[in-house]
Amino acid sequence: MPTSDNFELKDVELPPLGDGQVRLRNLWLSVDPYMRGRMNDVKSYVPPFQVGQPMEGGAIGEVVESKAEGFAVGDLVSHMAGWRDEAVVDARTAQTLPDLGAPPEYFLGILGVTGLTAYFGLLDAASAAEGDIVFVSAAAGAVGSAVVQIAKAKGMTVIGSAGGADKCEFVRSLGADEVIDYKAGPVVKSLMAAAPKGIDVYFDNVGGDHLDAALATARQNARFAMCGMIEGYNTGEPTTLRYIMRVVAMRIRMQGFIYTDYMGRLGEFYQDMGAMIASGQVTGRETVMDGLDSTLEAFRGLFTGANTGKMLVRL
Amino acid sequence: MPTSDNFELKDVELPPLGDGQVRLRNLWLSVDPYMRGRMNDVKSYVPPFQVGQPMEGGAIGEVVESKAEGFAVGDLVSHMAGWRDEAVVDARTAQTLPDLGAPPEYFLGILGVTGLTAYFGLLDAASAAEGDIVFVSAAAGAVGSAVVQIAKAKGMTVIGSAGGADKCEFVRSLGADEVIDYKAGPVVKSLMAAAPKGIDVYFDNVGGDHLDAALATARQNARFAMCGMIEGYNTGEPTTLRYIMRVVAMRIRMQGFIYTDYMGRLGEFYQDMGAMIASGQVTGRETVMDGLDSTLEAFRGLFTGANTGKMLVRL
Repeated sequence: MPTSDNFELKDVELPPLGDGQVRLRNLWLSVDPYMRGRMNDVKSYVPPFQVGQPMEGGAIGEVVESKAEGFAVGDLVSHMAGWRDEAVVDARTAQTLPDLGAPPEYFLGILGVTGLTAYFGLLDAASAAEGDIVFVSAAAGAVGSAVVQIAKAKGMTVIGSAGGADKCEFVRSLGADEVIDYKAGPVVKSLMAAAPKGIDVYFDNVGGDHLDAALATARQNARFAMCGMIEGYNTGEPTTLRYIMRVVAMRIRMQGFIYTDYMGRLGEFYQDMGAMIASGQVTGRETVMDGLDSTLEAFRGLFTGANTGKMLVRL
Repeated sequence: MPTSDNFELKDVELPPLGDGQVRLRNLWLSVDPYMRGRMNDVKSYVPPFQVGQPMEGGAIGEVVESKAEGFAVGDLVSHMAGWRDEAVVDARTAQTLPDLGAPPEYFLGILGVTGLTAYFGLLDAASAAEGDIVFVSAAAGAVGSAVVQIAKAKGMTVIGSAGGADKCEFVRSLGADEVIDYKAGPVVKSLMAAAPKGIDVYFDNVGGDHLDAALATARQNARFAMCGMIEGYNTGEPTTLRYIMRVVAMRIRMQGFIYTDYMGRLGEFYQDMGAMIASGQVTGRETVMDGLDSTLEAFRGLFTGANTGKMLVRL
């Protein structure tokens, strides 16, 4: 579990702009579970953070000075130099926000990495389609709450899992057909009751006993999108599975994926998600904390269940 | 673990032939791990055996009497009324052996369910192709020994795992590039040493620590063919995985499959396997026990590692 000892808030003098650079005033910062992985000094799909260097991370900023073609003062951009109130970046690492009629913070959530992960995980990694029975763990979380909404918009039956009555109520408000409170009893038992016919798709955000419950209830040719196992990020505990043998008999497909695999399909994503947002079928759900000082608290909150929807810091 | 208390050897009077039936004298019987699953009274991909009824199973028999068109006395057929020396069956449940120039017992092994499982598991479920680094567990077993040979014939690098020096030597004789003795130390350590660059494909016959080792060493976009987890068949113990989280970062695909999924592609299988057998790239490997009395011993031997290659009973 990250603590304040792992971080330092530091005043730094930013350099004058070089050619092709922009100065950004950050408006919104993203905190994400994958950042916890980057705090371990191990080889993974993104390199580890370097001690003493500023934390990278998704952010939305306003251009306050520009020496880059195509970037004007006042433009809103998304970029990766997060966890600071001002940044100087090469303009080629920043993207001006496409005009989809959505609020800028959506590009850190439902129209950003979160939405991309939910969209392609569900529809590509798990090949989910209309009529499927979909089980989503951490359904009150950033990715999970997007998965629930996309699945409903696409005509699927959705069972979401969350911890506690408030979060379950939130998941129900997203349109889920059934909600499981994983704190109220064994997940496998609750899922069997909520999905008596079994499940076709599992969107895994947590691993552990949720994964085992999905294995236990999977129907033939079920597909699992393996997105992240937040349960193991801090504990490092091994996973015990009673039902892994069902992979064979039920011809289950488990597919790991990372949103970066789908960057080439960003246009398709903006088009389809933009339409679902415009029609009101999907809306950004956020938990917002205010001020750069609150960033660490927001980050830690990801691992204690402090957020419903996407956790954001507003500057 | 099955014991002699679970079985009874019984003399039964067979009925006279009806129209469309054949009387068969069995020459070869197959014993297979999946039969253990059918001894549990649970729903699975094949229904459980019925207490008091003869054990079903793959067999090769010679037609000794026929009231069915297309079946003549002396024809050799494969059928599912195994574990007996004589059987009366509906001819539509028996197949005359295709002429591939192979000995009849091959149709219970490398040209039967065993070969079909190895072939489509490797090439379809795991999408293995030339140049891939392939790890095979239980590589001295029926399916495993077929996987090793097919993978080598298709230009892959093969690491096989087996228990004890003799079996490892056997796997080497099949053409494996590296062999791991899982009894000599932790599989994960041995596999990391045998495959310093990691693995692209894992053909899983055992589950447990072999599966975990494969997860630990999988390269990006690795594919796992999940064939059977013989380790759990008798114990019912849950599986503990330390490396399941790598499914996400490495985009691993785990695909469960059953040979019956591929029955529609039998022609393609006979053609390709027939050619590999004719060229000597693949040969049937069998452990043969003699006499109907030895069937139970042969079956139990599957779970104690008594066989190299396919376990057969010759009558």
